[in-house]
Amino acid sequence: MTHPLRLGIAGLGTVGMGVVKILHEKQALLKGRTGRSIEITAVSARTKDKDRGMILDAYAWEEDPVKLAQRDDIDIFVELMGGHEGSALEATKAAIASGKDLVTANKAMLAHHGHELALQSEKNGSVIRFEAAVAGGIPVIKSLTEGLAGNKIIRVMGVMNGTCNYILTQMQATGRGYNALFKECAELGFLEADPNLDVGGIDAGHKLSLLSSIAFGTQVNFDEMELEGIQRIELKDIEQAADMGFRIKLLGVAQMTERGLEQRMSPCLVPQNSPIGQLEGGTNMIVLEGDEVGQVFLRGAGAGQGPTASAVMSDIIEIARGTRLSTFGQPANTLEKAGSASSLTPAPYYIRLSLLDKPGALAKIATVLGQAGVSIDRMRQYGHEDKTAPVLIVTHETLPRALDQALRQIPATGMLDDTPVALRIENV
Amino acid sequence: MTHPLRLGIAGLGTVGMGVVKILHEKQALLKGRTGRSIEITAVSARTKDKDRGMILDAYAWEEDPVKLAQRDDIDIFVELMGGHEGSALEATKAAIASGKDLVTANKAMLAHHGHELALQSEKNGSVIRFEAAVAGGIPVIKSLTEGLAGNKIIRVMGVMNGTCNYILTQMQATGRGYNALFKECAELGFLEADPNLDVGGIDAGHKLSLLSSIAFGTQVNFDEMELEGIQRIELKDIEQAADMGFRIKLLGVAQMTERGLEQRMSPCLVPQNSPIGQLEGGTNMIVLEGDEVGQVFLRGAGAGQGPTASAVMSDIIEIARGTRLSTFGQPANTLEKAGSASSLTPAPYYIRLSLLDKPGALAKIATVLGQAGVSIDRMRQYGHEDKTAPVLIVTHETLPRALDQALRQIPATGMLDDTPVALRIENV
Repeated sequence: MTHPLRLGIAGLGTVGMGVVKILHEKQALLKGRTGRSIEITAVSARTKDKDRGMILDAYAWEEDPVKLAQRDDIDIFVELMGGHEGSALEATKAAIASGKDLVTANKAMLAHHGHELALQSEKNGSVIRFEAAVAGGIPVIKSLTEGLAGNKIIRVMGVMNGTCNYILTQMQATGRGYNALFKECAELGFLEADPNLDVGGIDAGHKLSLLSSIAFGTQVNFDEMELEGIQRIELKDIEQAADMGFRIKLLGVAQMTERGLEQRMSPCLVPQNSPIGQLEGGTNMIVLEGDEVGQVFLRGAGAGQGPTASAVMSDIIEIARGTRLSTFGQPANTLEKAGSASSLTPAPYYIRLSLLDKPGALAKIATVLGQAGVSIDRMRQYGHEDKTAPVLIVTHETLPRALDQALRQIPATGMLDDTPVALRIENV
Repeated sequence: MTHPLRLGIAGLGTVGMGVVKILHEKQALLKGRTGRSIEITAVSARTKDKDRGMILDAYAWEEDPVKLAQRDDIDIFVELMGGHEGSALEATKAAIASGKDLVTANKAMLAHHGHELALQSEKNGSVIRFEAAVAGGIPVIKSLTEGLAGNKIIRVMGVMNGTCNYILTQMQATGRGYNALFKECAELGFLEADPNLDVGGIDAGHKLSLLSSIAFGTQVNFDEMELEGIQRIELKDIEQAADMGFRIKLLGVAQMTERGLEQRMSPCLVPQNSPIGQLEGGTNMIVLEGDEVGQVFLRGAGAGQGPTASAVMSDIIEIARGTRLSTFGQPANTLEKAGSASSLTPAPYYIRLSLLDKPGALAKIATVLGQAGVSIDRMRQYGHEDKTAPVLIVTHETLPRALDQALRQIPATGMLDDTPVALRIENV
């Protein structure tokens, strides 16, 4: 296998140029590790004439990524355009149809079309690799697909969106509110073009759906994930959770239960002394839990040029070395359809209420909770501010539907000033 | 590739039986993930008639592991005997000579003979995989060899011996001394037959030497590693390090410098709030630092039946899927000979002295340090106990040879009651 491996790279943004740079600067190292040259044949991007800090004249230019994907002189189509529909999907399908291998960082595309693309590529004998789609430079796809392949996977958990973790940890550290930090992230360029992808938990949810598929041998099922963003997290929740020994994280949890596949991406309380509780800033952490290995924690940069390009390169190197794996760790036509059981596993919850200063208010709330089957572990009532008193409740393990029922009924007591906030507590 | 993959397993201790158990219980899962059956053909162990909790009659029995390794009806020789000479090495060589692939958990054998075995196996077209040799179930060999293959590796660090970390964290947590905890570990079965392999840092050093080879493209060179165990760590060092915001860990550090390869396995102070500082009990943590990806932290169980068998299985599955990698990530005949530069990189140091109650004692010590080129960052003198006073010094960055010179000269001042203790501080 000494003929060069030829790449067509579509998308020359931060990640694309990171990959070009590595291929340019590390030729000898890559050849030493793979036994062959890895060459860029052709590239494509939205605008040709743009200063990208490097001269790209040595590579053929294609206006149309579909044309790039179909070129006879490329072996791998490297899709770094982004977006789950449109050009990226079209070019990806063209690449697969013409028998090219695909390396992509596009979590959105795979979350929506991964199963269909995997079926098609495996039919054509080509491979799809996507290490860069989940948790940047952390080799989590490889660890799950290969490193833990001797395990029945019990759970996959993690913090998978650096921007959300940055906002939440900065709220905690500086006492600034969500809106101020959201604005700062926008100015720092930390947010996607559609910020809801980040703060709405969608980007992290895409990633979790891909991990779920590998972990549990199921077809990617992003649509049935329980999804909630961090937009409604208030500073007082951060502070009060800290008072009780917790941190708030946008946490993904996927597990296979007797009732079906649970996938949840939502703000949760975690113990502040746990590895996830202590995760600061834009860092990502994934916990892979196998029946043999126990919990393996992986932590590193979840975004940025170097880390993401490092992950893209690991896929390219894998193919260069002749490794050919099924997209989701087993043939796509053996992946099972997984229903959703996200609301069926009990957990303790944190509930914050803003109680009106009326006689018997707390008793009425407690009664409603009890009637719904929500049992209280700890409760704190703080002093009245104006006409309301903040009340914090930590429940015993509660079924989500029991909690929902209670939350629907509590406002009818007329004792609340505000909508109650409820967050799941995960002991990771 | 639908013919079964046939294994010969030598060594039916904890790990060996863990592998047999997984192969027995997870046939369908493994076939789903690899597309083929994985079967045990024959086994070997020191004693045949022993209750191992499973009936092994279905597998051929070989008294002699060399015979097992040479059987025509095995594809992979799974070496789980241990020991770096004798039967394990002999059988491994026989396996390679007869063209079998090798999966092993034997860090000692690879640290001493890895380069020679890799050369031989690659000449014969067979592969050697050893995920279980380093950090148990944590997929660190895979992460380094494959996941970070697009990086120039800057440093590899980590806590790689669970028993040492258990002793050190228990000293901290319970105030019990080294000897009591050593005894407890012996009773709990946490120690190797030769305990010096654990507490002398040798086992962890073996592991670091394997990581070094992959990281830096160098021939395994365990013999030139700077190696020091935890036997001389006293409770007061643990306590006083804690006073200054540090924890003591048996820490491995390997890095390529302009002066050559540094490899060091020794007790070090690390910041108590860092991920390594917070690592409790028998857990392992490896930090892989690449020029593109930055630092990736991997954490999990470093020993035990399930975790180690999980790693062995990941190698077997890799081969079953048709992946064939060079032992140390690039052809063994391209690995460079690496000299040792372990004593050439400066670091801050922690020094503990037991000063006699004499006039001018501290001044004399400070003078000797200054003359040797050791500059003091922080110093604490505690009250006198009997006729001596403990003195703690944190130095600025110091060359190891300057420190050694100072430590040799200090006793000549006649101001010390005891040999000074010096530990490197690593800011990881």
